[in-house]
Amino acid sequence: MSRVRRRAHRDPAASARARDGVEREAAGMMKWWGWGDSAKRAELGEEAVAMLRSELGEAEPAERAALEQVIVPEPRPLPRAIADAVGPGAVLTGREHRVRRAAGRSYPDLVRLRSGKLDLAPDAIVLPASPAEVARVLEICSREGVAVVPFGGGTSVVGGVEPLRGGFDGVLSLDLRRLRGVDVDRRSLTASLGAGLRGPEAEDALAAEGLTLGHFPQSFEYATIGGFAATRSAGQASSGYGRFDALVTAIALTAPLGELRTLRTPHSAAGPALRELVLGSEGAFGVITDVRVRVRPVPERRLYAAWMAPDFTAGADIVRSLAQEDVLPDIVRLSDEAETRVSLAMSGAAGAKRALLAGYLRLRRRARGCLVVCGWEGERKAVERRHALAGRVLRAGGAAALGHAPGDAWERSRYQGPYVRDELLDLGYMAETLETAHSWSGLGDLYDAVRAAIGASLAAEGTPGIVMCHLSHAYRDGASLYFTFLSRRRPGAELEQWRAVKAAACAAIVEAGGTITHHHGVGRDHAPYMRGEVGQLGLETLRAVKERLDPAGVMNPGKLLP
Amino acid sequence: MSRVRRRAHRDPAASARARDGVEREAAGMMKWWGWGDSAKRAELGEEAVAMLRSELGEAEPAERAALEQVIVPEPRPLPRAIADAVGPGAVLTGREHRVRRAAGRSYPDLVRLRSGKLDLAPDAIVLPASPAEVARVLEICSREGVAVVPFGGGTSVVGGVEPLRGGFDGVLSLDLRRLRGVDVDRRSLTASLGAGLRGPEAEDALAAEGLTLGHFPQSFEYATIGGFAATRSAGQASSGYGRFDALVTAIALTAPLGELRTLRTPHSAAGPALRELVLGSEGAFGVITDVRVRVRPVPERRLYAAWMAPDFTAGADIVRSLAQEDVLPDIVRLSDEAETRVSLAMSGAAGAKRALLAGYLRLRRRARGCLVVCGWEGERKAVERRHALAGRVLRAGGAAALGHAPGDAWERSRYQGPYVRDELLDLGYMAETLETAHSWSGLGDLYDAVRAAIGASLAAEGTPGIVMCHLSHAYRDGASLYFTFLSRRRPGAELEQWRAVKAAACAAIVEAGGTITHHHGVGRDHAPYMRGEVGQLGLETLRAVKERLDPAGVMNPGKLLP
Repeated sequence: MSRVRRRAHRDPAASARARDGVEREAAGMMKWWGWGDSAKRAELGEEAVAMLRSELGEAEPAERAALEQVIVPEPRPLPRAIADAVGPGAVLTGREHRVRRAAGRSYPDLVRLRSGKLDLAPDAIVLPASPAEVARVLEICSREGVAVVPFGGGTSVVGGVEPLRGGFDGVLSLDLRRLRGVDVDRRSLTASLGAGLRGPEAEDALAAEGLTLGHFPQSFEYATIGGFAATRSAGQASSGYGRFDALVTAIALTAPLGELRTLRTPHSAAGPALRELVLGSEGAFGVITDVRVRVRPVPERRLYAAWMAPDFTAGADIVRSLAQEDVLPDIVRLSDEAETRVSLAMSGAAGAKRALLAGYLRLRRRARGCLVVCGWEGERKAVERRHALAGRVLRAGGAAALGHAPGDAWERSRYQGPYVRDELLDLGYMAETLETAHSWSGLGDLYDAVRAAIGASLAAEGTPGIVMCHLSHAYRDGASLYFTFLSRRRPGAELEQWRAVKAAACAAIVEAGGTITHHHGVGRDHAPYMRGEVGQLGLETLRAVKERLDPAGVMNPGKLLP
Repeated sequence: MSRVRRRAHRDPAASARARDGVEREAAGMMKWWGWGDSAKRAELGEEAVAMLRSELGEAEPAERAALEQVIVPEPRPLPRAIADAVGPGAVLTGREHRVRRAAGRSYPDLVRLRSGKLDLAPDAIVLPASPAEVARVLEICSREGVAVVPFGGGTSVVGGVEPLRGGFDGVLSLDLRRLRGVDVDRRSLTASLGAGLRGPEAEDALAAEGLTLGHFPQSFEYATIGGFAATRSAGQASSGYGRFDALVTAIALTAPLGELRTLRTPHSAAGPALRELVLGSEGAFGVITDVRVRVRPVPERRLYAAWMAPDFTAGADIVRSLAQEDVLPDIVRLSDEAETRVSLAMSGAAGAKRALLAGYLRLRRRARGCLVVCGWEGERKAVERRHALAGRVLRAGGAAALGHAPGDAWERSRYQGPYVRDELLDLGYMAETLETAHSWSGLGDLYDAVRAAIGASLAAEGTPGIVMCHLSHAYRDGASLYFTFLSRRRPGAELEQWRAVKAAACAAIVEAGGTITHHHGVGRDHAPYMRGEVGQLGLETLRAVKERLDPAGVMNPGKLLP
């Protein structure tokens, strides 16, 4: 869509300060009102802005409150025992600290932050240094009735870190950044990673051993290992490396009632898989402190390439064939017509270059079509072999090769989405995403239903929009659909507008039998749809687990379960 | 080890009778005192018997009671409402029916059955025709206090179908053979399969559509879809097709409190995976009625081949490389020195042929070594490509190719183990197996510890034995170990003898950090080790789930949880 001006850099002094529980606005730190480092903008080109104005209408640029103006509720004092448990330097109560843990990074979160009026904020931030300190804090909070919101990178887009009190007097944000252990088992190709490590920190530690985790969600720069596990994250290369839950071989959860730790074996038939009960638990059962994951050698070769499929249905058939014929690339992303059109229009490619591409596509009778981005990573020969095998399936499905440039362009901008969103919000546009999944048989109807629901709902709000989708995370039996929609905001009624569209989309998903979330998680936003997802008895089962592990109910109130 | 005399055949009339809830000893039916069809023996050759006598000592051949002599406890009457719920033809109380559901097929089960004295037997067998009938039966049993033991193929080797009353007045065996639905989704390559379908029945139904499930455990001929799911079964080709739990995309459980049904989507981030809580639940939470599995086209080509690795450590390194370099065959089985030696000695190959093989191996400096059997299944070219890639890794690891004959021989005898066990028992020998798994780093110590524990325990019983092992079910991060041990039985003290060895092996597994079971399940035999496996809080969590789904506690008492 545009160019990121500066690559994120790491400031060792800043992370030392963070480890000491003392933080200041530092390079690489997430800006309090949006996504990412404030020094790193994704400016929209003039052409892109013109297209938005033409398609969505002129929007009213949004004001943004200054940090000094932000109104937060008065903090309530927390039990002294907490500071005794972690040390006084590991309890933060300053205004900026509280603002920084007051919200995740969903569209409504950003609307609230920018407005400068926060109804919710944690009373304090507690930074435990070890699983033992986590255990002590949870014990105190259970006894004293203080809600605990586990906080990793704070990147939730579903309200997963919202500091809800859940009927308790106090609420603390349990910032896990000091859980940073790394223990590599080279022979088994596994690594135990502390929950507080961010994506780049984990990758740096593994790269020092010639290894990679291969988990690259769009939130990679800020999201943490614990967060990946707690939300069943999926990354852009998960078709190859496996979703995060499939990478986990053992996990440790510190619950108010004690520690649950699964064995370090590749598999077991010893009853139901408790590992799979901890994965996706979103802080509602306890705190994930440590995750042992399967790792791989750093790939010898990375290869990205793009194709143009005739249309979305044909493109989906191609991706299905790739998956079912065991030649799925490590990265596959099929954009529908709308996403293809908008991506090309906003790609920032110079006019001549784009004209060349357009000419080529007309020649191949692909003046319209759907972009397919593929990527392979691994041992050189294996990458070439798999690239060739997949190429055959793509050509057989009627896709035209676009070469490596569009694939490489995608790779360079893979973490850029949320930076672009900040720019769109500045201009006065709403930009939101949501995702689902279904079997291949159910995918077509799901796509039609969700797209129609979002479109109709935006129109009903008086803000007709652009609804785009891509299919990614393909499996032998189905795939995920990731929707993005843009429209003018309704000034002063942004949250109502968002709620209406979100509700329409969710209802369409449930009605079509899709899952309410493929990888964003449940948080607060999807909790009302969990009954549709798992049924009444499924809910009862999850409640039974929560009640056993967290009898006082202090863990992340209002998330996961309705 | 020997030759199966006749392939099992299917008798449509017999299965029609079975469906009607009326059964007689029919062709293909499991013999009441052992494994498989009584017309299908796996006779041991003279050479094999001589080897056993020379290595284990002369054994006292075991008597076998006649069916008419078997003593079973008097049945207690069950509530009439049960017969009303399923129809009177679907409740069986005859002696033979009760004997046939009185035990699974573990070594101690066979000892008890052959002795003709059964302390336990179900009061009646109930054969529900639908999930709705299952629900009604569970409701009545919960209300009236009748224990329910779900019964599929009755092949458990860990006491999973033992008709324990668990403090209730009555106990019924819920035979699920009438749950036989098949619903194929060709586009998504999934199939919904009724819990009562046996392995060959499910494969026949899928083969009619050109598809296969690819799940071939040694119990394949008798075990059921519901049983595979309830015990997290693994098959001989699970390295390629995936363990049964990995094949399941959706599952339905009828619990006393209602139905739990997971969505038919390839994946979801909507909280903890309830599917993974039902898988492995072994009838303790409810009855698995229906399983939707991922299926594949019937393979175009099957290729089996064997190699001889220098020793077990080198062989394990080869298998690890195959797994970690993504060229794992669909079937991999590495026998240790003892299993290799005994397999070759008992292979029944004519003297000249064996001498030829021995000569070849000496030439390749493999007079001793470890047999590696590999198999590939799938599209012709892919099989050839993958065979070539794996061959390189095998040769690089120092393995000598033995060609296809030993691989094909393994394939022909893949379900023969339990038939051989009956012959060994007739001769007066104990034959037992158990399995575990660990990370690659932990595997060597686990192997040494378990082998030593079994060997020492057999010696302490005064019956020194042969302890063999193979490594199979390889993963990127570890593998399973499958132990087989043979010794003279202690006449009249077979169960004490078995208990001593089993306890020694289990203690060694727990001590070495392995899992107590890789694919046999927990049942009654492994329940005491679940605390070591999942910890106190893990147990509490499973109990919380059980209490919520089965408040009266009637479901399969004494299994899974200690």
